Amino acid sequence: MKVAGFKASGIASGIKQNNKKDLGLIFSEEPATTVGVFTTNKIKAAPVLVTKEKLKRRSAQAILVNSGNANACTGTRGREDAHELCSLVAGQLSIPDTSVVVSSTGIIGVPLPMERISKNIPHLVASLSPQGITDFAEAIMTTDTFPKIVIKKGVMGNKEVTLCGIAKGAGMIMPRMATLLSFILSDVAVHADLLEESLKEAVDLSFNRITIDGDTSTNDMVIMMANGRARNDFLDTHSPQLTAFKTLLISLCVDLATLILKDAEGSTKIITIRVEGACTCTDAQRIAYQIANSCLVKTAIYGEDANWGRIMAAIGNAEAEIDPGEIDILFDNVVVVEKSVDNGMKLQAQEIMKRPEYQVTIKLHHGTGMAEIATTDLTIEYVKINSAYPT
Amino acid sequence: MKVAGFKASGIASGIKQNNKKDLGLIFSEEPATTVGVFTTNKIKAAPVLVTKEKLKRRSAQAILVNSGNANACTGTRGREDAHELCSLVAGQLSIPDTSVVVSSTGIIGVPLPMERISKNIPHLVASLSPQGITDFAEAIMTTDTFPKIVIKKGVMGNKEVTLCGIAKGAGMIMPRMATLLSFILSDVAVHADLLEESLKEAVDLSFNRITIDGDTSTNDMVIMMANGRARNDFLDTHSPQLTAFKTLLISLCVDLATLILKDAEGSTKIITIRVEGACTCTDAQRIAYQIANSCLVKTAIYGEDANWGRIMAAIGNAEAEIDPGEIDILFDNVVVVEKSVDNGMKLQAQEIMKRPEYQVTIKLHHGTGMAEIATTDLTIEYVKINSAYPT
Repeated sequence: MKVAGFKASGIASGIKQNNKKDLGLIFSEEPATTVGVFTTNKIKAAPVLVTKEKLKRRSAQAILVNSGNANACTGTRGREDAHELCSLVAGQLSIPDTSVVVSSTGIIGVPLPMERISKNIPHLVASLSPQGITDFAEAIMTTDTFPKIVIKKGVMGNKEVTLCGIAKGAGMIMPRMATLLSFILSDVAVHADLLEESLKEAVDLSFNRITIDGDTSTNDMVIMMANGRARNDFLDTHSPQLTAFKTLLISLCVDLATLILKDAEGSTKIITIRVEGACTCTDAQRIAYQIANSCLVKTAIYGEDANWGRIMAAIGNAEAEIDPGEIDILFDNVVVVEKSVDNGMKLQAQEIMKRPEYQVTIKLHHGTGMAEIATTDLTIEYVKINSAYPT
Repeated sequence: MKVAGFKASGIASGIKQNNKKDLGLIFSEEPATTVGVFTTNKIKAAPVLVTKEKLKRRSAQAILVNSGNANACTGTRGREDAHELCSLVAGQLSIPDTSVVVSSTGIIGVPLPMERISKNIPHLVASLSPQGITDFAEAIMTTDTFPKIVIKKGVMGNKEVTLCGIAKGAGMIMPRMATLLSFILSDVAVHADLLEESLKEAVDLSFNRITIDGDTSTNDMVIMMANGRARNDFLDTHSPQLTAFKTLLISLCVDLATLILKDAEGSTKIITIRVEGACTCTDAQRIAYQIANSCLVKTAIYGEDANWGRIMAAIGNAEAEIDPGEIDILFDNVVVVEKSVDNGMKLQAQEIMKRPEYQVTIKLHHGTGMAEIATTDLTIEYVKINSAYPT
């Protein structure tokens, strides 16, 4: 798990209890083209505000990330703390303050334990190594049960390029522009405009197509750094390798988003909700989200019960145009509902529902709008985890 | 529990198992002014379509209700069945078909067991009695754990009038225009236009202010019958008793809505979410619903944990204008968040959260928009009930 020119580290600094890793650092040996996509929640955490501002220059060399504390709803002090951490890291790395950005995840409303973090920054910097990505991935976990890393390699011209993505997820997940936290490192040489455009496109086709509980976090961000070490022909909008690069990036983001769903709090299944034949794509997406976030649909999925009436009720509740008598519903290839009435295939659908992953397709026969959203089931374990989450 | 001129009954007809009551009838000895409010779900059950159409005349004498089967998503056959049931009841009661309306609740997508129901209609009609309202209230229950009846008496001029409301609830509840099923009987003499307007107003201030799981049913309806037996001065828009009547009706509906929340599937608490100082009332309502339907907020309420960060995240996710740095959050009278940062009162808030009912107030300091929505917690029991609901 190495990307040319990048080092990383992850250590325990005492933000979390039980000596768990909670502080991570990514360092690019040379200034990297760096772009970000941030939460659309109107209440943004301090690190989101600070990093968004800093990345206007679209260049950075280091990302400091802590878990266990979101530094959200912490007022002026929270933003000062975020800036101070950047300075401390910059000092240790002998790079300008402007080259360091920050990201946080964890409990909202509690100021960062600055003393503990500051004290540990020299150790964090000293621990940097090309193999440190695994430690970094561990250090950004909250209720995640496994670290999430995806590597993709491709060829641009005659040079091999590497993309490495790291993410964390688990709860408060209905990304709208980004997932909780994800960092993508690459040695590709690429124009900043193009990198930004490609990242937005990839995020829209991956992280923005999953939902766990319909709650969009205050701290979501995806940051991508590209340092050019692959020495490929510089990628711009006219490059013949453009499509290959975008495809690589999309496939990386889709894999990361899938890992996040696989580790959804308390979930036992991953379900793709596909809506076809809506009036518009927006309508299709609204219907897909209405189904994907319905507590009743999600508990039926958990109970492996082909209670398609709940899906119909969700469709009818979406702010979208439909023809109430023309709806088909499929569980994988089993048609359970045809023209809005039962098709006598409930037992067959029940068999499909025992699978850990399957697709529910809704055919509306009303237009050409299409959307796909992946979701999970709502389980007893989800309620246990979230009613006992310590604050 | 009597209302002059009304009879009711409730029996077991074999739609439900274990000989539970599942068929109910209300009969007004003379034609009653009858108005209804129906679900806004675009997928409407057959009885909703049939009854809505029939009540265009705003007069009826009987309401047949079954539980255990929603007669929803049952196509043409479902509508034919609904009409046939009306005819059967009309025949037994020797009144015109047009005077009978129907309502159903239960599983979606399964045709009504017409033979069993038809066979039992003579017995249902024979069982009618002025005291039968309790049996009727039992017969319309699904996952409800107790029947819901509220009686209000008032004086219009020098005549006493009675309003009796019966409801069922428990799950798939975020009414938008009505709750699952509610029937309101009164001996008041009132103009049909005024009755309709008053019912809409009362529903909007009661049933439309509660949410259990954010799912609006396909079968929701509230029907009100007024037979004029109180012999009060006929109520119209110029009556001096108008306000008194509306107040009475609103207080009845609020009490019924509260009973529905008290019996919410698996819930342990009733929480009122009050949003003040929003830009508009619509904004306030959107924010209140976003909080009231957030899985993360509802599990924190269940866990009695003053995790106000989840409330902040929900506020920021609502499609509403806010000033992110100016938000106060109160648990009853305890201010936990002031100007969007922690106020050091979490332990005191935690004490409030042990109460079975309390209010969460959000002050946005942005305008004069206000809204109140009542909700429940999301519990392990809710997931158990809804993952095991038989279909």
